[in-house]
Amino acid sequence: MQYVKIKDAIVEQIDAGMLAPRQKLPAERKLAETFDTTRVTLREALSLLESEGRIYREDRRGWFISPEPLRYDPTQTLNFTNMALNQGRTPKTELISAKSILANKQAASLLALQPFSEVYQVNRVRYLDDRPVVYVTNYIRPDIFPKLLGHDLSNSLTDIYREHYGMVYQSIRYRISTSSLVGATAQALRATSGTPAMVVERINYNQSGELIDCDIEYWRHDAISIESVANLAR
Amino acid sequence: MQYVKIKDAIVEQIDAGMLAPRQKLPAERKLAETFDTTRVTLREALSLLESEGRIYREDRRGWFISPEPLRYDPTQTLNFTNMALNQGRTPKTELISAKSILANKQAASLLALQPFSEVYQVNRVRYLDDRPVVYVTNYIRPDIFPKLLGHDLSNSLTDIYREHYGMVYQSIRYRISTSSLVGATAQALRATSGTPAMVVERINYNQSGELIDCDIEYWRHDAISIESVANLAR
Repeated sequence: MQYVKIKDAIVEQIDAGMLAPRQKLPAERKLAETFDTTRVTLREALSLLESEGRIYREDRRGWFISPEPLRYDPTQTLNFTNMALNQGRTPKTELISAKSILANKQAASLLALQPFSEVYQVNRVRYLDDRPVVYVTNYIRPDIFPKLLGHDLSNSLTDIYREHYGMVYQSIRYRISTSSLVGATAQALRATSGTPAMVVERINYNQSGELIDCDIEYWRHDAISIESVANLAR
Repeated sequence: MQYVKIKDAIVEQIDAGMLAPRQKLPAERKLAETFDTTRVTLREALSLLESEGRIYREDRRGWFISPEPLRYDPTQTLNFTNMALNQGRTPKTELISAKSILANKQAASLLALQPFSEVYQVNRVRYLDDRPVVYVTNYIRPDIFPKLLGHDLSNSLTDIYREHYGMVYQSIRYRISTSSLVGATAQALRATSGTPAMVVERINYNQSGELIDCDIEYWRHDAISIESVANLAR
């Protein structure tokens, strides 16, 4: 397959350090000329590189070399900011919206709420080194966090929970699957519709075992690597 | 977006039980007529359904409704057969190849081997209810498991380790990422090249903390849901 050869050639250039993280690839027309191939074959090669997490596309801007993914351990403390800083990355959080809504199907099911319950919905985009990498939606129980919306929600929610409500995550139930970015989620991550996504859903319990909030994270799939160690019970 | 509407219509039919798991979808031409749309738009809808894990394609056979994914908890015992049986599924393992090789780059790096070390490579395909869902490559240290290749490797490796070598997994280092199926891996899973994949890499240690083997699993992404509970250390 010719496109696999082209893919391998680009991977070699990345591994040899000739193409640096975040560097923009030449235009598709130029690349097709360089590899003496058609646009169709070149696009197959690019699509394969994208699915392997080696390059990513920004809408209307072109293709870029993927930086190292963020190592994400779901069994450790889960504060995005500290995780990024520990790995030498620059984190940033942008608040998209925060409001009280009637629980939709997803929120009601994840939080085990009665129909027509009110719930806080907080949408945020998180950046690594100025690149938007994950769209996070939190659904939060207002009875447990009254007046939460009065706080600056571009800060860490877990810090606000701890400092203002004396509440911490004690256990987390999580689910990891894959999907794709579409609509507003894609747009907020500067992605074209259909870009591969890693989805992390978490349901979080406090120190008394109460379900206090949940979050749904749509990651640019090349920006995250889930890594952990399990010690097996016998 | 028209293709999102078509996607939603098909999801509704699945959720209402009008399209059963493993059922074949009508031909693309027929579907395009039903939804009064073009083949191009229909394919965008199908591609979105595929990326959301609602349908899957078998090469040259067409599109099918995805069954429930297998719930996979990396922190629990990791025997595929028992995991499937516990969830009411019918597992099967097919041995593709088992041989002694000079460690390639991947094996050497995962098992921390010296250059030119010998290593066993075992390739297997695992089925759920007669559908091939995961391509597994194990790299195994021959010094720890002498004469391993004489055993029936379509059986559970962990059973063979325990029964014939008195060895069990004590801790597992794992990494979860996404990629796509290509070449022989795609073919063994009856997938077209480029089908989304969930990749699980595991490095396994025995009760003395020795690194004994590793495995690289390429899953049909719709066939797996990684789910677990983490109790946070404070």
